[in-house]
Amino acid sequence: MTAALLNSLVTRLSPPPIPAVQAWGKSYGGGHGPLIDLSQAVPGYPPHADMLQWLGEAASSLAYTNYGPIEGETPLREAYAAHVSDLYGAKFGEGNIHVTSGCNQAFICAAMAVAAAGDTVLMTDPFYFNHETTLAMLGIKTGFVACDSANGFVPTVEAVERALTPDVRALALVTPNNPTGAIYPPEQLKAIFDVCRKHGIWLILDETYRDFLPEGYGAPHGLLAEKGWQDNLIQLYSFSKSFCIPGHRLGALTAGEKVVEEIAKIMDNLQICAPRAAQGAVARALPALAEWRAGNRHEIEVRADALREVMTDLGGWKLEAIGAYFAFVRHPFEGRSSAEVAEQLAKRAGILAIPGEYFGARHTRFLRFAFANADAVTIRQLRGRMVDFSL
Amino acid sequence: MTAALLNSLVTRLSPPPIPAVQAWGKSYGGGHGPLIDLSQAVPGYPPHADMLQWLGEAASSLAYTNYGPIEGETPLREAYAAHVSDLYGAKFGEGNIHVTSGCNQAFICAAMAVAAAGDTVLMTDPFYFNHETTLAMLGIKTGFVACDSANGFVPTVEAVERALTPDVRALALVTPNNPTGAIYPPEQLKAIFDVCRKHGIWLILDETYRDFLPEGYGAPHGLLAEKGWQDNLIQLYSFSKSFCIPGHRLGALTAGEKVVEEIAKIMDNLQICAPRAAQGAVARALPALAEWRAGNRHEIEVRADALREVMTDLGGWKLEAIGAYFAFVRHPFEGRSSAEVAEQLAKRAGILAIPGEYFGARHTRFLRFAFANADAVTIRQLRGRMVDFSL
Repeated sequence: MTAALLNSLVTRLSPPPIPAVQAWGKSYGGGHGPLIDLSQAVPGYPPHADMLQWLGEAASSLAYTNYGPIEGETPLREAYAAHVSDLYGAKFGEGNIHVTSGCNQAFICAAMAVAAAGDTVLMTDPFYFNHETTLAMLGIKTGFVACDSANGFVPTVEAVERALTPDVRALALVTPNNPTGAIYPPEQLKAIFDVCRKHGIWLILDETYRDFLPEGYGAPHGLLAEKGWQDNLIQLYSFSKSFCIPGHRLGALTAGEKVVEEIAKIMDNLQICAPRAAQGAVARALPALAEWRAGNRHEIEVRADALREVMTDLGGWKLEAIGAYFAFVRHPFEGRSSAEVAEQLAKRAGILAIPGEYFGARHTRFLRFAFANADAVTIRQLRGRMVDFSL
Repeated sequence: MTAALLNSLVTRLSPPPIPAVQAWGKSYGGGHGPLIDLSQAVPGYPPHADMLQWLGEAASSLAYTNYGPIEGETPLREAYAAHVSDLYGAKFGEGNIHVTSGCNQAFICAAMAVAAAGDTVLMTDPFYFNHETTLAMLGIKTGFVACDSANGFVPTVEAVERALTPDVRALALVTPNNPTGAIYPPEQLKAIFDVCRKHGIWLILDETYRDFLPEGYGAPHGLLAEKGWQDNLIQLYSFSKSFCIPGHRLGALTAGEKVVEEIAKIMDNLQICAPRAAQGAVARALPALAEWRAGNRHEIEVRADALREVMTDLGGWKLEAIGAYFAFVRHPFEGRSSAEVAEQLAKRAGILAIPGEYFGARHTRFLRFAFANADAVTIRQLRGRMVDFSL
């Protein structure tokens, strides 16, 4: 008898980082008050009561028990197409939308649609770790566009051009950014998109945190109004953060109709269709809870302001970037790794944050704070805990 | 400006077959009465009223709105482990179970856990088409174990051995089989498992239709009670058919703890976790609705009997295999493709079935009837429609 082998592309991946970080929190004794969990990005307030009611109505309905359309429920695709049309000032229809089971799934669908094992996809460095592990497990090679605090962690055109090699099929960007929070300005996105079009590669644009741009920001960019955008752009979105329902797993892609057709083939293999009942509920919520979501956008700004205040002249800690959901914070402990700092900060100060090195090895002087998880009162408690913290 | 390229592994896939077949049904004029849909395998009866209630309660609860454990909700993993323990007479725990968003997702997780692009996975021929397209889009090569009506479409040990090449990482089987309905006898599964163990490859065993084995069948096989099964076996299951909730997308893998850990890495990238609310509801239903599921097993047997009766001396039509959910039926039209027969049968006789060639090119003399979709009264209406049907 011979034991069978596992896929080394998978075995060599690190275990998922979030559970590992959350395990540190379990060792915290509570001496400074309750744990402040700024690790996984989860909205620090509950969904709207109507959202819960609609989820319950849909889930208990016979209407959603059977298989549904692979691309998603028509009412949700239409409601989201209308929403995207409003936001970007261009016209999108049901055929431009594919519903997925969360935005990680939207990313893997996009990646598989444009790249096979052996091809290369570019990411920023720092990167969102699940993007990196997704590509690695598929045997897709990764290249990196270095982003630095000097540019507010926004990628430059020159850095993108430097990273281009002949086997690059796509550039994946996240804006507002995870992990840094950086908001990529529309003109910078336009310049980078022009590079992608010039070189015939895809821009995969993950806008999971789009609804938390500052109030009055307007359209995140103009790319979806560019003529021929369908040939080079795939945009990703998550309903998890905006509606506070990550457990219901719902995201979406916006792309050209041809791309949506290809992604339907992938989705059919991945899971046939996204769970249906939540789609029915979100189709109702998307127009109905617009005002509620605007209120949350304001609340996140209040939290960002609280963190800026907390971080002012806070020993050697420095807020290097802050945006729609995340802050990227430089720790004061030269020569100590971000994993060590984050572990001790969790266990001794009761503050859960993700080590910067999880987003790329060279970011070991940083921690990612998902500040949107905590209200302003809680965020103000960070100061005392961090001032007293030493290694 | 240069349009970017799509992944040719995806573009060369045929569009998902089920929507294409269902489109034929839309051209049926209704002259013989309502359409009889025997295409996609969906239970032809509603879920239990308690199931709907529990789904609604869970979906409207705050308890399931946030992210959950990647591997699945502990109550469901424990309930399903207990169920599998009972069924196979061996002891399984939470660590042996990974919940997925349906059984297609369980398959892609298993495939990715054991094979990378360039490796080979064996399937039977005929095969379940989503298994084939899943491997193809990942760049995993496929080999085939020929199954024939002479053996009731059960694979022989010799056929498995003939298909083995040095780059084979796994053999994927479906029992009760999709598309043929064939039930693989326990001793045959043991003999094939021994071949897998001897050659150090994985047996991936898809048991989506397990709950519809004939009454009194007992354990489907003894493989999970074999010492060291964890080194060579991954078993897949679906909650969709048994609880009549495919739209809620829920399946599970049973495997060794080490494999479950690897699959958690894959699932984290695919979609972080399966949708949570349905997991909570099914954890309640698994023990509570055991009797209801036994009743359904009986009902499916009644339907199988009705189909056997219908197919007796029915012109040139011949029932070549029938099992837990499907029948594989030989059509009488020599020289006409199964796609042509199925299309005309849909449009003119109002009977939706899947062409045999969708399960492998050489099966063009067959149609797959998902007879479990229709009650016995409806199944008896097939006779008149098929007797009169000509090409």
